[in-house]
Amino acid sequence: MSQHDFPSAMAAEAAFYQAFESSDHDAMMAVWCSQDDIECIHPLGERLMGVAAVSDSWQKILSGSKQLHFQVSHARQIANEQLAVHVVYENITIDGREQPPVIATNVYRNNGNGWHMVLHHASPATDIEGKRRQENTGADETILH
Amino acid sequence: MSQHDFPSAMAAEAAFYQAFESSDHDAMMAVWCSQDDIECIHPLGERLMGVAAVSDSWQKILSGSKQLHFQVSHARQIANEQLAVHVVYENITIDGREQPPVIATNVYRNNGNGWHMVLHHASPATDIEGKRRQENTGADETILH
Repeated sequence: MSQHDFPSAMAAEAAFYQAFESSDHDAMMAVWCSQDDIECIHPLGERLMGVAAVSDSWQKILSGSKQLHFQVSHARQIANEQLAVHVVYENITIDGREQPPVIATNVYRNNGNGWHMVLHHASPATDIEGKRRQENTGADETILH
Repeated sequence: MSQHDFPSAMAAEAAFYQAFESSDHDAMMAVWCSQDDIECIHPLGERLMGVAAVSDSWQKILSGSKQLHFQVSHARQIANEQLAVHVVYENITIDGREQPPVIATNVYRNNGNGWHMVLHHASPATDIEGKRRQENTGADETILH
């Protein structure tokens, strides 16, 4: 697949999560800027700098056979005509099982012809919903006891 | 302290870590943009949105009596005239004890008069140096056994 030029940061972001969900390494790397100043931090992972390191990491992540589903929520954007910073929650299910939520900061750059990802910084979120579920379960148990 | 207008994202970043180190809440909030689209994610913490939530969190963090020291390393910047995205390692010592490293994405915005922080996303880094030290300790132990 050749390098795409996305018409907006939003379009690049949609393609990023689509590539992740469909485990498509070529589509994933088409979202990333091909310049070597890109950076990627997977949750609790190393800080990966440059196209080769970022591409390698996605090769490993996307080579699994698991069925991923992403729901992105609470997206907020700070942007101008050249740079866009998105902060989102990634709500992920793997083979139908809900995972603890992840917070991601995604940064996109417009090179004049289109938008590409230049930074993905993901980290485990405080699992507030999980805590609530736990609390609710606790409450139910109290009633049942 | 009144709101400062920093001449560069670098100056705002220096003031951010200075305020953190000196536990100065007023100086910390002078670094942050006063608009309500700011966000702050402390390591493994909640995603805090808006001036009140961000200010409250720093009030709690900076009210401790511990002696913090920051060394920021491997800073990289993606920027234009209105937005600057910095990714850094935060190497922190608390009361003289080295902490596991943190990766931070710091985003600054120029409102026309100066630069302020609009996003701080910090998360635990893979402690590669710690792992190396552990491995080295392991190697020493093997020699000693």
